[in-house]
Amino acid sequence: MIGGQRQLVTFGIGDGRIHEIFGILNPAASRVTVLGLGSMGSAIGRTFVERGYRTTVWNRTAGKSAPLVDVGATASATAAEAVAASPLVVVCLLDGAAVDEVLASVDDVVAGRVLVNLTSGSPAQARADERWVSEHGAEYIDGKIMGDPPYVGTPNFTVLLSGSRSAFDAHESALRVLGGVGYHGEDPGFAAVEFMAQVAMGYEMLIGFLHVLKLVRAEGGDVTEFAQRFAGSLAAYPPLLTGIAKAVASGEYPPDLGPLRVQAALMDDMIDHRESVGVETMRMRQVKELMDRRIADGHGEQGFSSLFELLAKEG
Amino acid sequence: MIGGQRQLVTFGIGDGRIHEIFGILNPAASRVTVLGLGSMGSAIGRTFVERGYRTTVWNRTAGKSAPLVDVGATASATAAEAVAASPLVVVCLLDGAAVDEVLASVDDVVAGRVLVNLTSGSPAQARADERWVSEHGAEYIDGKIMGDPPYVGTPNFTVLLSGSRSAFDAHESALRVLGGVGYHGEDPGFAAVEFMAQVAMGYEMLIGFLHVLKLVRAEGGDVTEFAQRFAGSLAAYPPLLTGIAKAVASGEYPPDLGPLRVQAALMDDMIDHRESVGVETMRMRQVKELMDRRIADGHGEQGFSSLFELLAKEG
Repeated sequence: MIGGQRQLVTFGIGDGRIHEIFGILNPAASRVTVLGLGSMGSAIGRTFVERGYRTTVWNRTAGKSAPLVDVGATASATAAEAVAASPLVVVCLLDGAAVDEVLASVDDVVAGRVLVNLTSGSPAQARADERWVSEHGAEYIDGKIMGDPPYVGTPNFTVLLSGSRSAFDAHESALRVLGGVGYHGEDPGFAAVEFMAQVAMGYEMLIGFLHVLKLVRAEGGDVTEFAQRFAGSLAAYPPLLTGIAKAVASGEYPPDLGPLRVQAALMDDMIDHRESVGVETMRMRQVKELMDRRIADGHGEQGFSSLFELLAKEG
Repeated sequence: MIGGQRQLVTFGIGDGRIHEIFGILNPAASRVTVLGLGSMGSAIGRTFVERGYRTTVWNRTAGKSAPLVDVGATASATAAEAVAASPLVVVCLLDGAAVDEVLASVDDVVAGRVLVNLTSGSPAQARADERWVSEHGAEYIDGKIMGDPPYVGTPNFTVLLSGSRSAFDAHESALRVLGGVGYHGEDPGFAAVEFMAQVAMGYEMLIGFLHVLKLVRAEGGDVTEFAQRFAGSLAAYPPLLTGIAKAVASGEYPPDLGPLRVQAALMDDMIDHRESVGVETMRMRQVKELMDRRIADGHGEQGFSSLFELLAKEG
């Protein structure tokens, strides 16, 4: 693992890197601490320094802090000392176990501070961390990163945040130094939920895309030209997506994409065609099976969104 | 089945319906014939009439033509008589078997005409129909419809076309009467390939979306708000899609979305989280398994696009 943090997915990476290196340190500047100096934590620490923050850094193993000290950061010998140095503490460690270990070592000094934990983890982990931090008299914000270390501090780096609203309001300007910032509500698990949901949609689309590229190539088509056409088609999806979500939220299902009894026949055509050219049919068969069940239940006139009723009953 | 044609998928339906009803018939106007008067064929025939074409219609069972005759079309008693009436013949039937039957009945009169076959079917069917039509001295264009009958003649109705370039050039203006038109090359199968590929991408995205809505709801999130955010995220995908296609085309795989060894760990996190909230993991497990195989083969530093190498070997 390169980083001190399992972040990685750069959906929609751009090509701009903004290097606004101020090169000056303002003694009256805001103070921030960064715990964890993997590639991501180091990039975050460096960005704070470059934007004029009085930055304190700490890493469990020595040596990682030297490059940051060279540009103007202060290195602490212990996590507790680092936490004590700033009202805002950004945590960027390998995993939840590393977070637990560090938190246990700072419980005497954490009170009154704001912890922003950017470490990878589940919604449940975020909620557990928030409870611990609250019980120790501090405020908690959970963050999930969408972007790679070289893009910290640019619009191509996004941090999903949730947790204490008052802490977010107090430190929003510092957090915006890192890149695009979205606040997803008081529930500290919501940043992780948004991350899981957005990244899942990315992989759903992209694995489907790889299979479709195989189909296009098997039929003698040009994969790069198809990609451009499909990329152009994406502009048509927002109203469809919001319409489906509205149907799911209301439980009233219009015949979106046509009546299911008609869509099921199309699924058969697609499955037959994919098999004829050696492309897998996993998702199409799942969709067909769900459609058949809805049709058998007498809902053949409803649309695609109504398949949600079957999913909601499972699991 | 409502229509005489299994078309149905309206990805990206808008809300505009253009009713430009001319209400006049120009005796010098171009002639067009429509074979098949299901809901789609009827809408197509009506649109040609409304745009001033001298329109001849035919349907296997009587009665369907009366509403079109009322607005100014001419009904023929036989398919052969209808084909003989116009240089451009639009075919919109239930399925390939119906097309074969009708073609067999018109083989004496089809020579010198252009057949545009909008009936649902596979790329292989389109290529077979093209051979038959060519052997009978006529030109063939295959078409696949993305849109619903009420939208014929509007920008929310798209026809994917492929086949004879000269026939397309000669009749492009008439075909554009139907809506948005894309010409996908001389191979008559390419319209169907494009249809299968675009529609598959739609279903891949939308079934993934339904599962993710379940995840969002299970975690207490708002599905309509998530839909709006994901719809906004789509704008970031075009460069990613074209980059993946370029990697697939070249066989050189950069670490897109990060190195596979790091993405695989993320897949584990996502699978664990989905299981914890009762959301299926079919696709995530497939992706993880492909990643693990690439990593085992020594390609852990390559990116997501490199999974294509495994797909290309299968099937």
